[in-house]
Amino acid sequence: MKVTYSCGETSGMTGSLERLTKVREELSRLGLSGFIVPRADEHLGEYVPASAERLAWLTGFTGSAGVAVVLPDCAAAFTDGRYVLQLAAQIDTNLWQCRHIVEEPPPGWLSANAPTGGKIGYDPFLISEEGLIRYGDAGLCMVPIDRNPIDCVWTDRPSFPSAPVEPYHLEHAGRSAEEKREQIAGLLRASNQDAAVMSDPASIAWLLNIRGGDVPYTPLGLSFAVMHAEGATELFMDPEKLPAVTRDWLGNTVSVADREALAPALARLSGKRVRVDPAGTPAWFAQTLRRVGAVVVADSDPCLLPKARKNAIEQRGARNAHRRDAVAVCRFLHFLFDQTPRGVETEMTASARLLALRAQVADFHGESFPAISGAGEHGAIIHYRVTNASDRLISSNETYLIDSGAQYLDGTTDITRTVWSGPDKPPQALRELVTRVMKGHIAIATLVFPYGTGGAQLDAFARRALWQVGLDYDHGTGHGVGSYLSVHEGPISISRLARPVPIEAGMILSNEPGYYLPGSYGIRMENLLLAQSVELTPAGKQFLRFETLTLAPFDRRLIDPTLLDEFELAWLNAYHARVSKEIGPHLDEGERDWLDAVCREIP
Amino acid sequence: MKVTYSCGETSGMTGSLERLTKVREELSRLGLSGFIVPRADEHLGEYVPASAERLAWLTGFTGSAGVAVVLPDCAAAFTDGRYVLQLAAQIDTNLWQCRHIVEEPPPGWLSANAPTGGKIGYDPFLISEEGLIRYGDAGLCMVPIDRNPIDCVWTDRPSFPSAPVEPYHLEHAGRSAEEKREQIAGLLRASNQDAAVMSDPASIAWLLNIRGGDVPYTPLGLSFAVMHAEGATELFMDPEKLPAVTRDWLGNTVSVADREALAPALARLSGKRVRVDPAGTPAWFAQTLRRVGAVVVADSDPCLLPKARKNAIEQRGARNAHRRDAVAVCRFLHFLFDQTPRGVETEMTASARLLALRAQVADFHGESFPAISGAGEHGAIIHYRVTNASDRLISSNETYLIDSGAQYLDGTTDITRTVWSGPDKPPQALRELVTRVMKGHIAIATLVFPYGTGGAQLDAFARRALWQVGLDYDHGTGHGVGSYLSVHEGPISISRLARPVPIEAGMILSNEPGYYLPGSYGIRMENLLLAQSVELTPAGKQFLRFETLTLAPFDRRLIDPTLLDEFELAWLNAYHARVSKEIGPHLDEGERDWLDAVCREIP
Repeated sequence: MKVTYSCGETSGMTGSLERLTKVREELSRLGLSGFIVPRADEHLGEYVPASAERLAWLTGFTGSAGVAVVLPDCAAAFTDGRYVLQLAAQIDTNLWQCRHIVEEPPPGWLSANAPTGGKIGYDPFLISEEGLIRYGDAGLCMVPIDRNPIDCVWTDRPSFPSAPVEPYHLEHAGRSAEEKREQIAGLLRASNQDAAVMSDPASIAWLLNIRGGDVPYTPLGLSFAVMHAEGATELFMDPEKLPAVTRDWLGNTVSVADREALAPALARLSGKRVRVDPAGTPAWFAQTLRRVGAVVVADSDPCLLPKARKNAIEQRGARNAHRRDAVAVCRFLHFLFDQTPRGVETEMTASARLLALRAQVADFHGESFPAISGAGEHGAIIHYRVTNASDRLISSNETYLIDSGAQYLDGTTDITRTVWSGPDKPPQALRELVTRVMKGHIAIATLVFPYGTGGAQLDAFARRALWQVGLDYDHGTGHGVGSYLSVHEGPISISRLARPVPIEAGMILSNEPGYYLPGSYGIRMENLLLAQSVELTPAGKQFLRFETLTLAPFDRRLIDPTLLDEFELAWLNAYHARVSKEIGPHLDEGERDWLDAVCREIP
Repeated sequence: MKVTYSCGETSGMTGSLERLTKVREELSRLGLSGFIVPRADEHLGEYVPASAERLAWLTGFTGSAGVAVVLPDCAAAFTDGRYVLQLAAQIDTNLWQCRHIVEEPPPGWLSANAPTGGKIGYDPFLISEEGLIRYGDAGLCMVPIDRNPIDCVWTDRPSFPSAPVEPYHLEHAGRSAEEKREQIAGLLRASNQDAAVMSDPASIAWLLNIRGGDVPYTPLGLSFAVMHAEGATELFMDPEKLPAVTRDWLGNTVSVADREALAPALARLSGKRVRVDPAGTPAWFAQTLRRVGAVVVADSDPCLLPKARKNAIEQRGARNAHRRDAVAVCRFLHFLFDQTPRGVETEMTASARLLALRAQVADFHGESFPAISGAGEHGAIIHYRVTNASDRLISSNETYLIDSGAQYLDGTTDITRTVWSGPDKPPQALRELVTRVMKGHIAIATLVFPYGTGGAQLDAFARRALWQVGLDYDHGTGHGVGSYLSVHEGPISISRLARPVPIEAGMILSNEPGYYLPGSYGIRMENLLLAQSVELTPAGKQFLRFETLTLAPFDRRLIDPTLLDEFELAWLNAYHARVSKEIGPHLDEGERDWLDAVCREIP
């Protein structure tokens, strides 16, 4: 199915004094000293429906991660390294202090600025218990609020999404929902848990083999579920979203009820041992379960790991989806490299062109995230999103960074290339930096590592060549990727801060080191990787290696081969030979000639 | 001062059925279903006095890490990867099950084997609260026991050590105790803590600039302390151990009282906020403080980080100590390489020879740990300790691994070399493995990394060349090292499991990748490194690099230069040139010629 929802325009949602004042009046009425406004909906996912864009409504900031804190006399907005420049550009700094969420986290800022002993309100559906703990640890008195004060003053709030939910058939899912449910029920029984509550629609989509269209970029049907250890599943979702074919597909061991039935369902778990993911589930669930006398067992979402380990059908789907996606990407790169006259294409027209090329690909269902299309200095804004106001020409002799991806019925893609617009040769200093990023990319792509290794142990390989000259990048190296699901999927990642979850065969991860010079340019090189078992020793420990899924050339003009060692150069040549061989046959003659040329061996 | 204490011979301490039976009778008398016997004293340090060698007395196992668990009908002994082979060799497997402490931790084993609902006793002085939590999490009913049941049946238990404590003068310490105490008091005040309890004699030695001789290998005076936020310090130690000159050295803001005064001192902290390290302090402290109405603040030992950051005088001392140590090590290696007739030296005579050579070095104060001197297959026992029974000739055409270190007044050393006994050339398969270990060693030695990086992020660099062919080693890559203090010093390490503590300038770490083929040979290459700030970018982030402190040749016969890249070979040649230049002048002519030859450039 098509991802039918498209993200609400947020250009009219700039934060204003009027909105902030109304929220403060509401807090005062509730006897609160402060209130936190995370960029979250009730499912704590990355993409949220327009009806949950409270942070953007209040502050004007539209990044995908952040939180605002409102106090009577001051207010602050926080985001991470990807978005700090965007935050400063989008919010009214007369009303809001801008903060880096890692360097100066909200709990510390609050305890320094909130009135002593004052109550700080929060919406228990918009924060996890794990997130809440950090506020408690900072000595703050946190109070859950039944009705979100923003909702009380947000008069033109969009309605809840209600896209139809469709079956996700076995030819793509690879395993039946029955089998998956039995696996999860078995996990619960083995842990002596009577049930698990699920608030992540991606877990529910995986578990029940369904896909929806409620949020942008990810084919999710917003819903909650309770999975019982004996196998029954309760799904909480507006029944209107389920066409008869989907209702039949779910089968009669899955009950469906409206969201209103959720609280009574939790009440029925009184006395039971209920698994709740303290990191991914809104605090409301554990709070409610404790109130009704259930035993809350803090444990990860039981679907996370099984969903991350792609089965053979999903792996085949990922390879096919990437091969088809590569055709569109190569066509796009050919156009960019060869455009005449130069200087006509803008960031917006370029990303629209790539989207149009992808739309011709079989089983395309939309972008997997908002494309980052940044020329020159815009490339340094790590999660830049071009707007009518920011759009500019891709000029001659500058870098252009394009990070984009697509949802196909058989897999989710995500690729970044940094290209040189020409016509002159790129400066040597830039080539050296691109080559150092490339060395990091190759180091990750060629790793062999034992079972038990986590992403935190691998991250530095992507950075070493930059570190060597005193440089670094302020984001992780890789994130998990779903199968026609979230482009950012847990629980694995390649990052200094990665959870201690070992990488396993079948997991898909991005490999995207970069380097950014604010005001000048950004470099990022991203392919997706599929972890595979590799037998290296007759009777030894099992090892893993990565298969590269993404197939598109890197801009050879930006790479200085004298800085690559023999091993790195061999990898790059072999990769380009593979791109040429696998993608070339699907291109027109002119495109194929171009691809062969940019993929030819570097001596 | 000399480390006067020497470790009690443990050869007569083999575990016997009689001892186990007596302990079980004692447990039955106390109404306990089980009891845990950690290899620990009341300071939870690595080296313990003979009076605390309960684990060795009960089981016969003499490794430096482990725990025994006694149940009515079965018993098990646990240790880590370094000691699993030694454990199996030393204990009576009719009485004890052997377990890998990481793969099958004691709490899980206990909950599977202990009678349901039975009480498991522990000595609250021999385990931290952090250690205890894991037993509680496994659903065990843990009961603190006032008098250790082992002590009740251990009739010939050695008496407590009582070596004199001596001043550690400013020319080596670099900072006055007054200044250090003011720093720590300031840390406490900044954290709104009234006092900190200290149970680690290494922290106390650093804080008060004193050294003792109560345990083997580390110049510690066993003691406890309470540091108050306003600066006063209470030291709990047998006053007999303090000569008048040391008592004067401590000054009159340090009070000294016997160990018996500890409980009353804690009682005086009633109502105060007291900092206790939950990982490094016996559970007894927090339990007692809570009982008397103090607020226990779980926070790391405040001396840990300041002690780990060596000041400029300590850094100079480390360089000097390593240079002097290298003279003894090079003489030893020269003897080994050139010995005639071959096959006369044994593991024991070799390590005694090295010790005798070190004893000639200025300011030598004993070994920093029991030397690991392993020929051939003994090298595969990661923490092998040669005994009269295990000793054997270093034969021709095999590897010999020697891991040893010394305490000098100005610094602590730790070095491992693996050499080939000859006379034939080593097999190519072995050379390849040694070279892969060497590649890992060089990768760590040459890293440049930003402030904020922890050891967990660096560990895999030491393993990559082994991983590439499906191999690995079952120990960390590096540990912190003290300044005339513990050879294993927290809080930093280079390991998958390293705490998330960033490496800082002035910290000393070991770099010791290895590879072990049980039954055949062991390879390990260890130097100590000193982290240094490096300015790489005009206005950028601060970066660190490592200065290699250890100076001794690697056995070039075991290295295949065709497997090293240009950069690695350049490092090795530069290192050998430095060894030759810095150590050569301190050697006799014959030794010098040999050193020049083994350090000559590899083309």
